[in-house]
Amino acid sequence: MTRFHLPAESMPTAWFNALPSLPEPLQPPLHPATREPAGPDDLAPLFPMGLIAQEMSTDVWIDIPGEVIDILRLWRPTPLVRAERLEKELGTPARIYYKDESVSPSGSHKTNTAVAQAFYNQAEGTKRLTTETGAGQWGTALSFACAQFDVECKVYMVRASYEQKPYRRVIMETWGGSVVPSPVDDPSHPGSLGLAITDAVRDAAGRDDTHYSLGSVLNHVLLHQTIIGLEARDQLALAGEERPDVVIASCGGGSNLGGIALPFLDDRDVRLVAVEPSSCPTLTEGRFDYDFGDSVGMTPLLPMYTLGHDFVPPSIHAGGLRYHGDSPIISNLVKAGRMEALALPQGKTFEASVQFARAEGKVPAPETGHAVRAAVDEALAAKETGEEKVILFNFSGHGFLDLSAYDDYLHDRLIDA
Amino acid sequence: MTRFHLPAESMPTAWFNALPSLPEPLQPPLHPATREPAGPDDLAPLFPMGLIAQEMSTDVWIDIPGEVIDILRLWRPTPLVRAERLEKELGTPARIYYKDESVSPSGSHKTNTAVAQAFYNQAEGTKRLTTETGAGQWGTALSFACAQFDVECKVYMVRASYEQKPYRRVIMETWGGSVVPSPVDDPSHPGSLGLAITDAVRDAAGRDDTHYSLGSVLNHVLLHQTIIGLEARDQLALAGEERPDVVIASCGGGSNLGGIALPFLDDRDVRLVAVEPSSCPTLTEGRFDYDFGDSVGMTPLLPMYTLGHDFVPPSIHAGGLRYHGDSPIISNLVKAGRMEALALPQGKTFEASVQFARAEGKVPAPETGHAVRAAVDEALAAKETGEEKVILFNFSGHGFLDLSAYDDYLHDRLIDA
Repeated sequence: MTRFHLPAESMPTAWFNALPSLPEPLQPPLHPATREPAGPDDLAPLFPMGLIAQEMSTDVWIDIPGEVIDILRLWRPTPLVRAERLEKELGTPARIYYKDESVSPSGSHKTNTAVAQAFYNQAEGTKRLTTETGAGQWGTALSFACAQFDVECKVYMVRASYEQKPYRRVIMETWGGSVVPSPVDDPSHPGSLGLAITDAVRDAAGRDDTHYSLGSVLNHVLLHQTIIGLEARDQLALAGEERPDVVIASCGGGSNLGGIALPFLDDRDVRLVAVEPSSCPTLTEGRFDYDFGDSVGMTPLLPMYTLGHDFVPPSIHAGGLRYHGDSPIISNLVKAGRMEALALPQGKTFEASVQFARAEGKVPAPETGHAVRAAVDEALAAKETGEEKVILFNFSGHGFLDLSAYDDYLHDRLIDA
Repeated sequence: MTRFHLPAESMPTAWFNALPSLPEPLQPPLHPATREPAGPDDLAPLFPMGLIAQEMSTDVWIDIPGEVIDILRLWRPTPLVRAERLEKELGTPARIYYKDESVSPSGSHKTNTAVAQAFYNQAEGTKRLTTETGAGQWGTALSFACAQFDVECKVYMVRASYEQKPYRRVIMETWGGSVVPSPVDDPSHPGSLGLAITDAVRDAAGRDDTHYSLGSVLNHVLLHQTIIGLEARDQLALAGEERPDVVIASCGGGSNLGGIALPFLDDRDVRLVAVEPSSCPTLTEGRFDYDFGDSVGMTPLLPMYTLGHDFVPPSIHAGGLRYHGDSPIISNLVKAGRMEALALPQGKTFEASVQFARAEGKVPAPETGHAVRAAVDEALAAKETGEEKVILFNFSGHGFLDLSAYDDYLHDRLIDA
């Protein structure tokens, strides 16, 4: 329960680009039709050049534009919190720290990249952005960010989430976004992130004033999230810790994981752990291959772990983790053995989330619950061995808009997929 | 968007008791049957002696117990934020500050007194607490607090809110509370705070192991909330402000208002403003009289502004402001002219809340929206006069669990009562 606040003037002013530090060079994206390496011109119909340049940059540090910093200041630096009440309840000698990204306007880490993407688009004249959203965290973040830069925002929301979480639509609308369930052409389909991407990309590709915005997976998205880990490094120092022994985050497309873990990439002794749902085990059971980012093959092919672009995962509550593929950067690290991956059933994650909520007072988003569970398991393992392990995990978002999931868990209606 | 963090070690360690500073002595509560002044023994069936002593104390400062401080540290000190983006949008020379109580576990200021009340009850052997909740903020806070002290928690929730806000029930259950709609004996009745108090008091009075807990109105509740204004005073100094010109808060029973305003009571030049809904205009249109706290006359009579204990206000979205009476302390101040009161229709409050959400990124609770609207109006008035007014308002809670209200507002379904 000790919170470590970084002074406002110590907020990082540059993002950390992991590309030069990867164990092996990242393979390029391939054009969906020619299967040749895709260059900036191939990506230009969907993204502004500012983001395309970041996608391929070899600079280790990339300055955060002042206009972006001005918005990030609304909630950043976010607190690093030592979960002493949870430690006590677990009886562990481990010290558990969490980075609280739930304090952002939209309630999750997603706002970090949303603001940057809205900025670069507006700077190059984009009038309108389309995107997909699974759990709703990303669409909420982009709606907020677009409101800051007077960019119109259209969100294709995975239908299962749209129906499970009506409040998500409302908060996006409160910030001025418009929201429709996806897939748009099949009202009986529960949807998936891949299908929603298809809807959003098709919309953007068909209009000159419109670009597309992706909330995870791509290099520039993980880049914008590194502010999380950069702040956490400084805050651990404030807490008197030399370094964490293990850094943990949930993993759907990889952005909150990349955000907290990549700044520790060069610390070879620090374990990095990706936690995914058993029902969508991309890193733990997928194959490493080139695959499409969407479900029908409109996007470039990316080198990544994948369950196949036509994989439709069960409608678990952690909608943000229901993605067939994974970030190429994360996939690269897992493939090279630099990052561990584990898969958990959702029942175990809600069990830990309720324990966390009762001890620390914060209700985790279902996605975040995967990181909570893994952190609790690390702490319990440390109890067995007596090790004073330093555990850092990303509290990527709160669960105030996902309480129907807790309702199901508390009343034994959860399908433990 | 500048946030002023008070260092953790500067969190106040004593509450400010306003009773000795009131313009006129507070009249005592009266026993409901005899109508004689009620003493400690009359209150003992419902409250622990620790709280009863605070209810009548003449000490200016009352120490916060260490066990309470240990829990408050989970989220306190809360930030004081200067709403520079809102100021800019309004084009006002005023400086607008808000105290962000929405960062508490339950999402509102209510947690401040919930923790104290759970502590004093547990310390005197109470095994179980009953309470009422309107919007759900209070029940949520008490559920969280009871979980910290292993006290059982039973919440009677105003039926209109219970049905409008299913997530509220879930979060109370997540922290281990049990929740039923009130009135329990009439499933067709929309309920009111007064009726829910009746249900909760009846339950507590009937069991030896059970006490009753009230989330507003009483002196000890306002006392526990003064930590808000005490922190805000210190943070305004950090911001370089000598004092606020006006302090604003929404007012249902008066606890968030008392919390932020009472520590400024002795600064005679500081205007204190209570904002209530037009549909439940207790301070602006009620009469000053002794009246019951509940709807059927089970509680002591309190000297306060009241619309009559049988008044059932319309089912507006700011459920926390639907109360027939008001805190005796607040009533005393309004009657003596030390505090102003104004009433606003809910449509105007949601208009300001959406403007605030888009500019500052925080979505206010419907109750909080009343303070936001009044602060915006003060800032617009300052624009007319060119005055560099310093406005402080209490951001008493976030609206993540009240988004159905925004849905109604955004889609023109709001009844502008």
